This record gives sequence, C-alpha cells and structure tokens, in this order.
Amino acid sequence: MEIISHEKPPGLFARMWLYLKSLPEKSKANVVEVVNKVIKLGKDDPRRITHSIKVGLALTMVSIFYYYQPLYDNFGVSAMWAVMTVVVVFEFSVGATLGKGLNRGLATLVAGGLGVGAHHLASLSGEIGEPILLGFFVFIQAAASTFIRFFPTIKARYDYGLLIFILTFSLISVSGFRDDEILELAHKRLSTVIIGGSACIIISILICPVWAGQDLHNLIATNLEKLGKFLEGFGNEYFKTLEDGESSNKDEKSFMQEYKSALNSKSSEESLANFARWEPGHGRFQFRHPWQRYLKIGNLTRQCAYRIDALNGYLNTEIQAAPEIKSKIQEACTEMSLESGRALKELTLAIKKTSQQPITSADTHIKNAKSAAKNLNTLLKSGIWEDCDLLTVVPVATVASLLIDVVNCTEKVAESAYELASAANFESIDSAISTEKPRSGQCGAEKSNADCPHVVITVSELTPAAAMADRSLKA
Amino acid sequence: MEIISHEKPPGLFARMWLYLKSLPEKSKANVVEVVNKVIKLGKDDPRRITHSIKVGLALTMVSIFYYYQPLYDNFGVSAMWAVMTVVVVFEFSVGATLGKGLNRGLATLVAGGLGVGAHHLASLSGEIGEPILLGFFVFIQAAASTFIRFFPTIKARYDYGLLIFILTFSLISVSGFRDDEILELAHKRLSTVIIGGSACIIISILICPVWAGQDLHNLIATNLEKLGKFLEGFGNEYFKTLEDGESSNKDEKSFMQEYKSALNSKSSEESLANFARWEPGHGRFQFRHPWQRYLKIGNLTRQCAYRIDALNGYLNTEIQAAPEIKSKIQEACTEMSLESGRALKELTLAIKKTSQQPITSADTHIKNAKSAAKNLNTLLKSGIWEDCDLLTVVPVATVASLLIDVVNCTEKVAESAYELASAANFESIDSAISTEKPRSGQCGAEKSNADCPHVVITVSELTPAAAMADRSLKA
Repeated sequence: MEIISHEKPPGLFARMWLYLKSLPEKSKANVVEVVNKVIKLGKDDPRRITHSIKVGLALTMVSIFYYYQPLYDNFGVSAMWAVMTVVVVFEFSVGATLGKGLNRGLATLVAGGLGVGAHHLASLSGEIGEPILLGFFVFIQAAASTFIRFFPTIKARYDYGLLIFILTFSLISVSGFRDDEILELAHKRLSTVIIGGSACIIISILICPVWAGQDLHNLIATNLEKLGKFLEGFGNEYFKTLEDGESSNKDEKSFMQEYKSALNSKSSEESLANFARWEPGHGRFQFRHPWQRYLKIGNLTRQCAYRIDALNGYLNTEIQAAPEIKSKIQEACTEMSLESGRALKELTLAIKKTSQQPITSADTHIKNAKSAAKNLNTLLKSGIWEDCDLLTVVPVATVASLLIDVVNCTEKVAESAYELASAANFESIDSAISTEKPRSGQCGAEKSNADCPHVVITVSELTPAAAMADRSLKA
Repeated sequence: MEIISHEKPPGLFARMWLYLKSLPEKSKANVVEVVNKVIKLGKDDPRRITHSIKVGLALTMVSIFYYYQPLYDNFGVSAMWAVMTVVVVFEFSVGATLGKGLNRGLATLVAGGLGVGAHHLASLSGEIGEPILLGFFVFIQAAASTFIRFFPTIKARYDYGLLIFILTFSLISVSGFRDDEILELAHKRLSTVIIGGSACIIISILICPVWAGQDLHNLIATNLEKLGKFLEGFGNEYFKTLEDGESSNKDEKSFMQEYKSALNSKSSEESLANFARWEPGHGRFQFRHPWQRYLKIGNLTRQCAYRIDALNGYLNTEIQAAPEIKSKIQEACTEMSLESGRALKELTLAIKKTSQQPITSADTHIKNAKSAAKNLNTLLKSGIWEDCDLLTVVPVATVASLLIDVVNCTEKVAESAYELASAANFESIDSAISTEKPRSGQCGAEKSNADCPHVVITVSELTPAAAMADRSLKA
C-alpha cells in the first residue's frame, strides 16, 4: 500500500510533465499536418477558397445594415434576418443558392400571409380562445408540412421551402400574440430575407460563379472518360500478363482504378441535376437545358461500370486462364475493348465540346467493336479450342462475354448521348444532316436504320457488308 | 385577317369556358390522386405520420413560452429562438436530432463566447474603428468556417455545427454594435436554444422513437435478404426457361428485381451510420455499437450485388445457350446459387436476431456452395462438353464463373458478419465456443482453420474429406 501511494503521485506528475513537454512537438506536427491538409483541399478545387471568401464578403456586406445608421433606422433588429438568410442560403453552386433563396423568399411570403391570417382569425375568438386556436393552427400546419416533406419529388426541390414555411408561419402567428404590429413584422421579415437572399444570389453569380449544371456536365463526361480509359487499357493489361509474365507496376495501373468513382456517383448526379434546374442560362447552357438526359447517360454509364467492375476482377484473380487460350482470342477481345474505350472517349469529347461531330466517330468505333465481336463469334464457331481443357476456358469466356456486354452498354450510352445532343442542340457537323436527324426519344431499337443512322445494328445482324452499307447511308 | 380576328375571341372564351367547366372534375380527380398518394406514403412507413405529429407537438409546446406570461417575462422576444431551434433541429431519427441539437447547442455556446470577445475587442478601438474591426472579424470567421466545412470528415459530422457557429458569431458580434446588453443577449440565445433542442430530443426519444441505428441494422439485413432471395430463385429461373420453354409470369419474378435497391444504398447507409453514432444505447444496441462494421458489410453486399446484376442480364438476354449445355451444369450451378442464397439468408437472420447461431449455419451453406463449385470444376475437367459448339458455351460459362464470384463474395460477407458479431457481442451458441472464438479483425485468409473455424477453405483445397474434417472440428 505504502509503495503504491508513494509511487503514484510522482508517476502521475511525471507522466503529465512528459505529456506537457512533448506537447509543443506534437502540436507542431499536428499543425503541419493540418496545414498540409488545408493546402491539399484548396489545391484539389480552388473554387472552395473563392467560395469561402464570397461567403465572408456577403456576410460583411449584409452586416452594414447594423453599422449604417439610416439603414438601421429602417429595419432595426430585423436586420438580423438578413444575416441569417446569408448564412443559411449561400451554397457552393449558383443553382443551390438560387434554389434555396427562391424557396426561402417564396415560403416567407406565403407563410407570412397565412400567419397574419391565422393571427387575425385567432384574435376574433377572445382572450382565452386565442392561444388555444393559435396552438391548434401551429400544430396542424407543422404536422401537415412535415408530412408533405416526405414526398420524394417535393423533398428533392422544395424541402427547404417547407422548412421555412413552418418556421415563418409559427414565428409570425405566435409573435402576433404579443406583438400588435404583426403586419410590420411580417413585412420587415420578408424584406430583410429578400435583401439577404439577393446579396447571396448576386455575389454567387457575379464573382467566380460555380454552376451546378457545368459540374453535372463535367461529372458525366469525366465518368465516361474514366470508363474509356479503363477499356483502352484493359486489353493490354489482361493479355500483357501472358506476354511479360508479370503485370506492370502500380503507377501505370492507377488510371485503371479510376472507374470506381463512377460506381457511386448516382446521388451527386441527382442533386446536381436538381440544383441545375434553378440556374439561368450560362455559358453553353440555356435555361431549361435538358438536365434529365444527363441523368439517363449517368445511369447507363453506371450499368457499364458494373460490368467493368466484374472485368476488373479478372485482372487480379489468381485463377488465370492458360496463355494459349488467351492468345487465341487476344486480337478480337483487345479490339472490342479498345474500340469501346475509344467510343466512350469520343462521347466524352462530344459532351465536353457540346458538338455532334465526335458522336459520329464514336459510331464508327462502336461498329468496329461490333465487328470484332462478330469475329470473336466466328472464331468460337470455328472450334479453335477443341483440344483445350474447358476448365481453363471459363475465365476467358467470361471476359469475352462481359466485353460483349460492355459493347452493348457503350451503344446505349451513345444513343442517349445522341438524344442529349439533339435535345440540347449540340453543334452539328452541317445543317443538311442536322435537319434530317431524328428527334430525341424517337430513336429506339425498333426504328429502322434509315430513321436512326447513328445506332441500331445488333451483333447478330452485323456483317462486314451490312457495316459497309450502313456507313454509306451516313455519308 | 378578318376571319382570324372574328374567330379568335370566341375560340378563346369557349376554351376558357370548357376549361372552367372541366375544372371541378379535374380537380376532383387530382384530389383523389393526391389523397391516394398521401395514404400510400403513410402506409409505406407509418412512422412518417407519428413524426409529423411529434414535430407539431414540439412546436406547440415551445410556443407556450409566448402564451404563458411568467415565461415570457423571462425570455421576451428571444423565445423565438426556441421555436426556430425546434423547426430546424427536429429530424426523423433520434440520431439526426441529437446530432443537430448537440451541434447547435455547442456551436451557439462557443460562437456566443467568441462573439462577445470580438465585440469587446472591437469596442476598445474607438467609434470609427469598431465597425471596421467587427466587419473584419465577421469576414475572417465566415471565410475560415466555410472553408473548414469542406473537410469530408468534418462535413459528415459537424457541418451543421459550423453553420450555426457562423450564424451565432455574426449575430452576437454584430448585434453587439447596437445592443449594449450583449451578454444578456448571448445568454438568452443560448438558453432558448437549449430549451428548444431539449424539447426536440426529449420528444423524439420518448414518443415512438425512430433509431437511425436500428434503421441501419435493418437496411443492411434487408439488402442481404434481397440478394439471398435472388440467388435462391436464380437457379430455377435460369434453368426453367429450358424446361418449360417459357419464363414464369411477372408477379413471381418481381422478387428477383428487389436486389436492385442494394446497388445504390451506399449514401443512405453512410448517413444512417453517421446519425447512429450520436444515439445512446437502445434496444439491443449499446452506445458505441460498432456501426462502422455495418458499412463494411454493406460494401461487400454491394460487391456481390454488382455480380448479381451481371447474372440478371443473363436471365433475359436473347442469346440463350443451348439447352443440352445448360442441363449438364444445371445441378452444380443451381446448388451453388441456392446455397449462397441460403447462406445470405442465414446471415440476414443472424443480423436480425443479433445471434451467432445462424452464422454457423451460413458456414455450412457456404461449404456446400463451395463443394458444388468443386463439383463443377470436376465436371468441366472431365470434358463433358467436348462435342458442343463453343459459341453456345460462352454464356453458360459466364454464368458459372459469376456464380463462383458470388460464392466468394458471400464468404467475405460471412467473414465481416462474423467480425460484427464478435465486436457487437451477438448472442453466442454456448459460452465454451464464444470464449474460444477469435477476436474481430484477426480472422483472415492467412489464418489456419483451427483459429477461424467459420471461414477459410478455398475452392482449390476443398475436398469432401476436408469438408468433413472441418465440420468435425466445429462440433
């Protein structure tokens, strides 16, 4: 007991002393780490820095209401609402800011009006009835609005508006119980909200604007490009292991893993599309640009990415197919993978440049990929593998089959890219072709080739002759 | 010209009249449609209705501050902050409400303190310097906090806290310019925020609580179950087309498409896990339940779902393999699919019941699936297909290969379910086994069977004898 009680305090103090002594070094290391993280965050997307500065600017501007006497005389303490609006409404992209600002403004207007009405109605019912009736109104509207927020379509676009509706209605109707100048309160609240919201919208549009539409456009194009990169590299990577006996080093391979970010981009695509709807025309995009079509391309891209994820599994699996089997289908598979990759890259280019030209080149690549698939079919029919062990054929056959799937996916992506190009009036090659081109949505597999020159031949009907004929149709 | 001007006004009026006449019918149809939607929304998840009522209740409770004179004398107009807190903080699940409430309370405390400090500092610098210095402070903190919100880890947990920090700091420091009773303002704001937040938290916990943790738990289990259902049905569905000549009707098939919701559940899983962290112990879950391990299971489930999506493509593809080829591997493939499906269903049960018992049964099913894979290998080696056209072999080979992938995925899911069971102290079969069982994270492919009785045999080393030996190890 004595030893313990004798040793403990110095132990504790010693440890504390050691801890305190190591603190400067530790905190220095921590500070360096944090600073590095901050620099990386800023470098990854410099718009984050400008956004932060813009928020600071908007807040400082709005707080002038407090400092400048004539303005303060007008609004008084209500100027607080302007500050609050800026903090809550200012979002990263113009679309999100506009959406929130309009939601807030409109909700404040409607809820303010209804709140004044509810107050008026309640005040008719005498001193005892008033709080009861007000409480009832608040309860009913809060419960109803909260329930409405569960509707998925409303949640996507008007969630914030309903929140502000509940807030303003409660504040106005309940404040009215004490404050007789309720109309003035509602009016001041509305005008300060409008001032704060306008400050946000103006600053977010005028100073280095971040357009959600542009981001969506880039995200879709980048995801397609990543898949294209994988496919361009896949043939070499899969068959190289057989030639060199070992796979290439990690640095070269990293671009092969980029496609993974496309697997889970659904939710960010959807929120960007929701924001983009609020945005006015900017750059190459008009108001009411067909953002929904980007989501369709995104969904098809993900379909393709799932197949690619399965393909990727065959790059690193231990169960490798025998080299002699691989070599027999190497040419056809490499061609399919390479050509679909090129097609996806052309589609990326088409989207990035908002031009129809690359879609035509993509069609050529898709046709090449399909004739490679055709060749593969012929190869398989010729029975080149008859002396091989079927067990070793399975992985190779799977890869071939997945590649055929990928070619089909690529074609669907090309179709939807074409629909987007028509709907969004991408720059066409020449006006003669552009007047002939089918309207969006009419171009499906059931249409004849003459109606839809850019798509349609299925693997089974594609022969070199048909491909030639199809090419001549286009020229 | 005359005809047009003569005809147009009646046409317009007639159309308006027709429109007005059809309005009651149309609006009746619309009302019926909306009512049906509301009923469906409520039926799908009745907790939505209770949540709406809870929000109404909390708001009405808090507005008592306005109605009841003694309370109003204490807080005055600041009572508004309590109303605002309730509207903004009350979320669907307890975890989200707690997270937002704590974030708001803490941020108000810290920002209030700093705001008072900033005000004091600025007031030292004279009448002209004060607004300039205040503006500078507001700018700096708003820009810095906005930038910090971009850190992914901070965004996930403290985003709302930082928003409130910016808000409160700006309000307190700027209001201080006019209001001399700044300390009282800060104090009132903090206490009303605490009152509003507590009302939310108490109501959300006491009245029909919705636990994010429980939801995450159920979501993970349900996703596993959906994959299990698909796999159990896949064998029959894929080989039935050959026996009956036509596929079964749509109603029976709908459960085969349920797995699709598992493909895109990543973001909802992550947000549920973030909310769950804030929750105190409830039901079978303790505070600091290993929620992160659910995310790991979720990720592996998605890996499996990608393969299943590829498999699903072979159910409806036009390029069907020849029946005689299918029939040769039917038994092994059906067995693999069925047994992995059963294993996933057992794992679902293990999670749903928080019991280790079903994991053991899942192991048995996985072993069966593996021995089926082994049989398939033997079949393929025996060269049963030698006289077949290789072209028709490709789809069947792909299905077989994807099923092998699925079996491997299932095993990984079982491993991570086992890790979860150990970390979360799931009910074990008997204490003798539970004391012997390995600790979570130590159980990988590199361990010997004796250490990890529940996993590990790879396809290559699995022989019926080994399986027997392994089973006897467990008993």
